[in-house]
Amino acid sequence: MLNHSFKLAARPLGYPKRSDWSYDSEEIPSPGEGEVLVKIHYISLDPAMRGWMNESRSYIRPVQIGEVMRAGGAGEIVASNHSDFQLGDHVIGTFGVQEYAISDGQGLTKVDTSFAALPVYLGTLGMPGMTAYFALLVNGQPKEGETVLVSAASGAVGSVVGQIAKIKGCKVVGIAGGPEKCKYIVDELGYDAAIDYKNEVLRDALKRTCPNGIDIYFDNVGGEMLDTVLTRINMRARIVICGAISQYNNTTPIKGPANYLSLLVNRARMEGMVVFDHAKEYGTAAREMASWMAQGKLKSKEYIVEGLETFPETMLRLFSGEKLGKLVLKVVGT
Amino acid sequence: MLNHSFKLAARPLGYPKRSDWSYDSEEIPSPGEGEVLVKIHYISLDPAMRGWMNESRSYIRPVQIGEVMRAGGAGEIVASNHSDFQLGDHVIGTFGVQEYAISDGQGLTKVDTSFAALPVYLGTLGMPGMTAYFALLVNGQPKEGETVLVSAASGAVGSVVGQIAKIKGCKVVGIAGGPEKCKYIVDELGYDAAIDYKNEVLRDALKRTCPNGIDIYFDNVGGEMLDTVLTRINMRARIVICGAISQYNNTTPIKGPANYLSLLVNRARMEGMVVFDHAKEYGTAAREMASWMAQGKLKSKEYIVEGLETFPETMLRLFSGEKLGKLVLKVVGT
Repeated sequence: MLNHSFKLAARPLGYPKRSDWSYDSEEIPSPGEGEVLVKIHYISLDPAMRGWMNESRSYIRPVQIGEVMRAGGAGEIVASNHSDFQLGDHVIGTFGVQEYAISDGQGLTKVDTSFAALPVYLGTLGMPGMTAYFALLVNGQPKEGETVLVSAASGAVGSVVGQIAKIKGCKVVGIAGGPEKCKYIVDELGYDAAIDYKNEVLRDALKRTCPNGIDIYFDNVGGEMLDTVLTRINMRARIVICGAISQYNNTTPIKGPANYLSLLVNRARMEGMVVFDHAKEYGTAAREMASWMAQGKLKSKEYIVEGLETFPETMLRLFSGEKLGKLVLKVVGT
Repeated sequence: MLNHSFKLAARPLGYPKRSDWSYDSEEIPSPGEGEVLVKIHYISLDPAMRGWMNESRSYIRPVQIGEVMRAGGAGEIVASNHSDFQLGDHVIGTFGVQEYAISDGQGLTKVDTSFAALPVYLGTLGMPGMTAYFALLVNGQPKEGETVLVSAASGAVGSVVGQIAKIKGCKVVGIAGGPEKCKYIVDELGYDAAIDYKNEVLRDALKRTCPNGIDIYFDNVGGEMLDTVLTRINMRARIVICGAISQYNNTTPIKGPANYLSLLVNRARMEGMVVFDHAKEYGTAAREMASWMAQGKLKSKEYIVEGLETFPETMLRLFSGEKLGKLVLKVVGT
C-alpha cells in the first residue's frame, strides 16, 4: 500500500496551478517508538495555505519545495506506539495533504465523533471556529446592540463570527457573494441582513444595512472592501484583520487601505490576530462552542469534495467562492 | 482701533495660497454680559488646521468660507464682564487667527506665566503636549526597554512624545528632516538615535537604529514612511495614528499603507487618537508635564514668527519643515 501526497513543486505566481504540485506516492511509513500512524480521512483547505506557499517569512515557516504541503486534517489511529492513543481513536492535527501521517503525539488532539462528525472538527470546532471565537471576543470586544459586519460571511470563519456575534446580542450583517450565500446566512445562520457584494454597490448596501454605522468589522478579505468599510465605521470601532483573501493571489503589490485615516477621525483600531496565540485556551473555547452547538445556537456547514487527487483544483474554490461553508477534502481510496 | 483677522476665502486645493484667505479689519467688539475680551499675543499654528479648511466632515466642524480661521491662541484679558477673569489674566483658548476675541469663558484656561512663558502653553503645555502625552501613554502603552520610533521627532508633538518615552525608560529613535533637527533631538532632547529622512534610506536607517525592531510607532506623517515602518514592527507593536502631514495637501487620493498585513503577521495594532477625548484629564497631564519640566526632564522649544500678516506664508512652514519645535505666530502691532 502506498501513501499518496501532494508536494510543493514550485512557488506559484498568482493562483496555484497543477504544475506547482507534484503528486507522489511512497511506502506508508511505520511509526517508531512513541509514534502513531494516522490514516487521514479529511483534509482541511484554508486560505492561509496560500500564504505558506510563498517564500517570504510570515507567522509560520514557509512550506519548502519538495515538502508535503502543510494542511490540517482529521483521521484515525491505525498503528500506535504511543500510550495516549489507541487504534481507532479519531484525531485532528497538522497532517499535510496526504493519506497517512506519522505523529509523535505533539499537536494531536483526540475528538469525539459521537458529538460531531469528523469534518466539523476541521471547521466550527477546529481552527476556523477557534479563529472566529478569539477574533470576535478578544479583538472585537462586542457589546450588546453593536453592529458587527462580517466579510466572507458564509465561510468557515465568517459564519462562526456572525453566529457568535448574534449570541452576544449584536446586530449582525454579512457580506457574501451571490444570492444563495446571502439567503443562507440570513435564513439558516440568523444574520440580520446580507450584502451580495457581487450584485450590489457595497457603499450603498452598507448605508442600507448598517444605518447606525459599523462597530466591529471582521476582515478576511482586505482590498477595496476594507477601504469602503473604513468610510462607514463608528467612533472607537474595531477592525479585526484575520486575512486578506482578495490579495493572496496578487501578482501586483497589495493595495493598502487608502481610507485608513478614518481610524484617526474615529479613534478606531485595526488589529491583526493569529489564532495560534490562543492555543492554551482552545479547550475552553471548544467546550463553549460545543455547548452552543448542542443548544442549536451555532450551526456548522461543511462543503466536502471527494478525492485527494482533486486537491489542486479543489483548493482554488477557496478563492473563487465555489463552496458554502468550510471546504474539506475527503480522502477516498488508496 | 481695529481687529485684524484672517478669514477663509476659498477652500484650498493642495497648499493654501494667500488668495485662499481674506485679511480683514473690523471694529474691536465689546464683551457682553458674562463675556471677556482677549487681546491675543500668540497664535498656535498646527497641522490639523489644514484639515479644518476642507469641506468634508471630520472630528470637528469645517471652518466655513467667510469665517475667521480657527486656531488656538494665548493672550490677556483686556476687558471682563465675567467674575472668573480679571484684567491682566493670561489665558489660552481657541481664539482664531485674529488680534482680539470675545469669549464667554467656555474653553478658556488661565495660565501662570511665572512658571512658563506664554508660547509654551501653546506647545508643550498646550494641545501638542497633551496630544503627545495621551497618544504615547494611553494608546502606545510603553514598557521599559521597548523601542519607540517617533516621526516628525523635533516637532511640537513628536519632541514631547520622544522625551516622555525616555522618561518611561524606552529606547527612543526619532525621524526628522535635515542634520540640524537630527542633532537637536539627540543632543538636546536625549533621543538615542536620529534618522535624517531627507538624506538617508529609511529602510536601512531603521535596521541600523532599531536593530531589535519597533514596538511603538508614533505616526504624524503617514505615506511612504508609515509603509516602510510597517515592515520593521515587532510582535504586538502599537502604531498610534495622530496625523498624516505628508498627505494633508494632497491633490491626488491618499496612498494607503500597502504593508498593513504586517499588522496580521505581527498581531499588531494601528489606532487613531484625537486629543479632545481626554479633555477631562488635561489638568492631571499638565501638572505631570510641568513637574517634568521643572526637573529638567522635558524641554520645550518654540519657533516664533512675528506679524499676524505673515500668517498665510508662516503656516506653510508646518509642511515645509522650516522651523524647529512648536510653530507660533506672534501678533505684533495693531
